[in-house]
Amino acid sequence: MRTIAIDAMGGDNAPEAIVEAVLKAKDEMPETKFLLFGDKEQLRNLIPADRINDQLGVVATTEVIADEDEPVKAIRRKKDSSMVVAANFVKEGKADALLSLGNTGALLACGIFIIGRIKGITRPGLMPTLPVQNSDDGFNMVDVGANAKSKPEYLLQWAEMASYYAEKIRGIQTPRIMLLNNGSESDKGDEVHQAAYELLKDSNLNFQGNIEGNELLLGKADVVVTDGFTGNAVLKNIEGTSSVILHLLKDSLLNGGVMTKLGALMVKGSLSSLKSKFDTAKYGGAVLLGVNAPVVKTHGRSNERPIYFTLKQVDKMIKENLVQDFKDEFATK
Amino acid sequence: MRTIAIDAMGGDNAPEAIVEAVLKAKDEMPETKFLLFGDKEQLRNLIPADRINDQLGVVATTEVIADEDEPVKAIRRKKDSSMVVAANFVKEGKADALLSLGNTGALLACGIFIIGRIKGITRPGLMPTLPVQNSDDGFNMVDVGANAKSKPEYLLQWAEMASYYAEKIRGIQTPRIMLLNNGSESDKGDEVHQAAYELLKDSNLNFQGNIEGNELLLGKADVVVTDGFTGNAVLKNIEGTSSVILHLLKDSLLNGGVMTKLGALMVKGSLSSLKSKFDTAKYGGAVLLGVNAPVVKTHGRSNERPIYFTLKQVDKMIKENLVQDFKDEFATK
Repeated sequence: MRTIAIDAMGGDNAPEAIVEAVLKAKDEMPETKFLLFGDKEQLRNLIPADRINDQLGVVATTEVIADEDEPVKAIRRKKDSSMVVAANFVKEGKADALLSLGNTGALLACGIFIIGRIKGITRPGLMPTLPVQNSDDGFNMVDVGANAKSKPEYLLQWAEMASYYAEKIRGIQTPRIMLLNNGSESDKGDEVHQAAYELLKDSNLNFQGNIEGNELLLGKADVVVTDGFTGNAVLKNIEGTSSVILHLLKDSLLNGGVMTKLGALMVKGSLSSLKSKFDTAKYGGAVLLGVNAPVVKTHGRSNERPIYFTLKQVDKMIKENLVQDFKDEFATK
Repeated sequence: MRTIAIDAMGGDNAPEAIVEAVLKAKDEMPETKFLLFGDKEQLRNLIPADRINDQLGVVATTEVIADEDEPVKAIRRKKDSSMVVAANFVKEGKADALLSLGNTGALLACGIFIIGRIKGITRPGLMPTLPVQNSDDGFNMVDVGANAKSKPEYLLQWAEMASYYAEKIRGIQTPRIMLLNNGSESDKGDEVHQAAYELLKDSNLNFQGNIEGNELLLGKADVVVTDGFTGNAVLKNIEGTSSVILHLLKDSLLNGGVMTKLGALMVKGSLSSLKSKFDTAKYGGAVLLGVNAPVVKTHGRSNERPIYFTLKQVDKMIKENLVQDFKDEFATK
């Protein structure tokens, strides 16, 4: 049986939304066990007694890592936090994967320091799946902030792992890999990006050259590789820019005259379909590539739906032996 | 009399839109002379003979730098291009400022190699004004790509110049300066951003700490300082993300049923006001800070309106002696 360790106390809607998602996923995934880590009383109150069985367990923990906690300190000091205990279960082989909605930095630290790097991988990279305008496929971007400083060799390894992930988990044949850069020509960017370009060009990947910041959502690439600093700024900027525009849109419709308000009602359906295009729930969470087990972060603001899709994503990663394949691949390099 | 040298051959709508903007601005700016550089015949055909006078001149040039030209090579080889001849007029004191819609890299090269750096400035930085959601003030972001590699000292100088620009040209008292980084704490980012944080903190600027990619359009900062590589990716990403969303919005309204189409007509006004919020025309062009004269780039896709606002912006920069102030300030440092 596959076992997913779930930090039930992280995120804005914890533990309610997490329990809700698990209860929904449980019946659809009979070969998977869900272990919820968190406050025993809260969790027991949320889970009907008859739903607790071989497939659903609760591990009582007494501490919670807060969003404002300093990550490395937090995982050292809060030994009985839901996140750290869950990570230790994975480390000890009592669970196969770790899922959390909590403090991103602390989860990265759990992945890197508790669960550990895959031998041969220099730096793990954080990889979400993001939407594109012309299809439901989306694209992967890596690294989006696990590393403040990135070297060309890291970018190559992230591209290799992300390409394999896109093929195996998302079902994309020979994924198109592109490098986020400040121009289309091969000599663009600083030394890191120029050297990364050469490494990617000489690799076995389906490398399609540079991509610029304005092209990310156009569907030109299945995987975009970037240094963690730029990736973090750009990821947050996609979120910020789309949220500001949708907010202004809502405002301008609600604050218009009677005619506008009536019109707004009539276009409501179309606007929701637009919003759902940028609702990344169906893509699941961001994967920390390069550690000894699937470690996945779902957005802290998530409600039940994205958590449910993340559970399916994590389950598929365990089922497809993704991490074992990475171990085999990078140990021999 | 103030004289603006205008590359009339760059951009998608050249020279028509440029001539149109100049003819509009001319009557409103009686103390300013407009020198148009480009194909004599084309320009003469567009300008009514009775409009050519002391305030409006044409300088005939025979070459044009294309968007795909390699910048440094282009300015060396195309000596009689509209952009290079205009830059030489500024260098020789026959004009006070340079405006172009053409090849950005070539314009940066004209600024740096022909017009020249201000003594004491290590690297010029490119600075647009961008919109924010809650006011018409916008914010300045620097550098957005003049430099692929940036050092902490560059960021401090850009912040100093941008702060002065925001105060003098945009009329903002003690502008709030923030550093684009991957977290809010002072120790976030790589060495460059950590060191830049310290320099900004110890400066005389009204430094408000770090800003993240999702907060840029919220109006928290009047000036955002960033390394040129990240700034380029983020600027292009703002353009790309907003354009994709507005495109999807239009699509979903046009492809809806009869009800949606009717509703779309009724909300049309509100949607245009949303679009005009992200129409940066009124902010003018991007300024190359740190060279011996105002050098301003307007978007290549611009029509008459943004060019008109850029002419006003450039005129104000000359009138306010911005560059002379920079020279005085940085020569003594």
